[in-house]
Amino acid sequence: MANILVLGAGVMGSAITVPLTDAGHVVRLVGRHLDAELIASIRQARFHPRLRSHLPESVAPYTNDQLGEAMRGADLVFLGVNSEGLDWAAERLRATLPPGVPVILLTKGLRGNGKSIEILPRVLEARLRTGQRGGVCGIGGPSIAGELAARRQTSVVLAGPDQALVDRLSECVRTPYYHVWPSIDLVGVEVCAALKNLFALGVGTIAGLLERSPAVKDEVRMHNPASALFAQALWEMEHVVARLGGRKSTVRGLAGAGDLYVTCQAGRNCRMGRWLGLGMRYSEAKARHMSEDTVEGAETAAAIRATVDAMIDSEALDGVVLPLLTAIMDMVCNDGPVDIRWDRFFAERARSIPQRRV
Amino acid sequence: MANILVLGAGVMGSAITVPLTDAGHVVRLVGRHLDAELIASIRQARFHPRLRSHLPESVAPYTNDQLGEAMRGADLVFLGVNSEGLDWAAERLRATLPPGVPVILLTKGLRGNGKSIEILPRVLEARLRTGQRGGVCGIGGPSIAGELAARRQTSVVLAGPDQALVDRLSECVRTPYYHVWPSIDLVGVEVCAALKNLFALGVGTIAGLLERSPAVKDEVRMHNPASALFAQALWEMEHVVARLGGRKSTVRGLAGAGDLYVTCQAGRNCRMGRWLGLGMRYSEAKARHMSEDTVEGAETAAAIRATVDAMIDSEALDGVVLPLLTAIMDMVCNDGPVDIRWDRFFAERARSIPQRRV
Repeated sequence: MANILVLGAGVMGSAITVPLTDAGHVVRLVGRHLDAELIASIRQARFHPRLRSHLPESVAPYTNDQLGEAMRGADLVFLGVNSEGLDWAAERLRATLPPGVPVILLTKGLRGNGKSIEILPRVLEARLRTGQRGGVCGIGGPSIAGELAARRQTSVVLAGPDQALVDRLSECVRTPYYHVWPSIDLVGVEVCAALKNLFALGVGTIAGLLERSPAVKDEVRMHNPASALFAQALWEMEHVVARLGGRKSTVRGLAGAGDLYVTCQAGRNCRMGRWLGLGMRYSEAKARHMSEDTVEGAETAAAIRATVDAMIDSEALDGVVLPLLTAIMDMVCNDGPVDIRWDRFFAERARSIPQRRV
Repeated sequence: MANILVLGAGVMGSAITVPLTDAGHVVRLVGRHLDAELIASIRQARFHPRLRSHLPESVAPYTNDQLGEAMRGADLVFLGVNSEGLDWAAERLRATLPPGVPVILLTKGLRGNGKSIEILPRVLEARLRTGQRGGVCGIGGPSIAGELAARRQTSVVLAGPDQALVDRLSECVRTPYYHVWPSIDLVGVEVCAALKNLFALGVGTIAGLLERSPAVKDEVRMHNPASALFAQALWEMEHVVARLGGRKSTVRGLAGAGDLYVTCQAGRNCRMGRWLGLGMRYSEAKARHMSEDTVEGAETAAAIRATVDAMIDSEALDGVVLPLLTAIMDMVCNDGPVDIRWDRFFAERARSIPQRRV
């Protein structure tokens, strides 16, 4: 039994309290300042309105100002804020996290520093004090929060800086329905977790293209093009992961293929993709149809766009291998049209570099 | 311009005539003895009733007995029969195929010879005469016939025994909507093309499990477990492909991930999986609900089951890495229940072999 603090009472932070409680742990759920209503609802009715689920009776809800109190005796911290909340969370953890306590990020995203792409666990770690560092981990893999809260079979990868730590933490949080596989490929898992949203937005364009295609035959779908985009997405994810120092094998496991699969089945990234496929430009679609929604793939595109361009210029990334990534970034960041260059797909790294130099 | 003969007038054989015609070739479509009605419909109305599509005016339909005549001047043959028709087709080609003319199999499947798994292009080649050998290729990747006939963007892999041949053939059959990528990994492409049906049957069980799960919350789906099965399927496909001498990279491209994706979205393998997920055993589901349907994944399971067992016994395959494959084969071949061992997934080859010997 461990004392586990979850910081951030959004859907994922709240859903994770279900397996953590089932695994026998004492769980404290601390809302951000934005989560006051959610925490009030949990206190009053044990019900999370956005997750549309009850939380276990034993989960103790805390408000933002009670973080210091909630942190007392904590053995492990989960961070459930979204990527925009990371800087706030870093400040709060710097002030309250006891030395030696590991942090597991549920937060997904990437940042560009102009020269390279940074993963969020490293962004967080850089903000912590020396004694607080060394234990920042991340979780990837197909895990829709509502399904996890309903105890659906869910399989994820827990990645961190060393094998002993991830083995111990995986063992700690595993339940008969929450299958947690340890990995030391933190870079691979985090890059996949962020890029899958961006690529799902690309796969989602096909739904819109289908709707506006001439109604030659109503029953004919567009599974062929969607599947080719799916395969190309994995191809490009491998390139980015490998160039950033991660492992290609991560891309073909739960964190890459598994999470991309689930993200292409439903969700906000797909919905945005559909609007673009219908012919609307990104800024209009966002303003008219999704102004209240965080479209994670678009946020990631905006966060890394300039850095990706710089990395292609410096040959740290190979643009020839990344036609889908660059097309999606152009749609999101430049209001570009859906322009899929099928004939440029599946460029091989080994071949493409000499070709560029010719 | 080439003279291309397509043998087999089922949905895929007939659909391929659309891009072949658009690529400027002269196309002859030869039905099997079972295809007489289809050929009659094409002759009369240019319409394929099962594909529910018109074929190009210039496609010349032939009946089975006219094969010799249709073969005159052929530069290339596509084989569009199903796996059950392969032996028949091999006899017919042996009698009529001019020396040096390549054959591209659209047929998908595998055979077990008790010791190892054979890919269909090699099964066919062994039946041909010496001068007819050396040019047998295969096509993999996400390609629903009805979508190809409707000229949807479709991306596939054409695999064969040597680079010059597959480069030439890919160039020959490519169109602005039919993107054909050459590969010399014939083993990888063929193994993926067959196993994806079997694994899609496994992923399909989740739909049935969802329907019969207690209605805790109607809106909660089972995308998490389906996605984990998808990732595990790729993991296991890599193991089989590698042990049979193919390339792992094929599994993460169009032939593996792309084709598995499309096969999990719809089709007969998924439908059979749903019945099993609902709690019905295979033989009952087949007899009661799908007696008229060829369930390709089940056919493949039956074809290789004994050989896979023998290969695991001899350590040619590692059973520890293949819990999903063996579970699906047990469902199909032994009328076993859906028994998904989530905690045995993602076993690593390097680790698992010593574990087995302890």
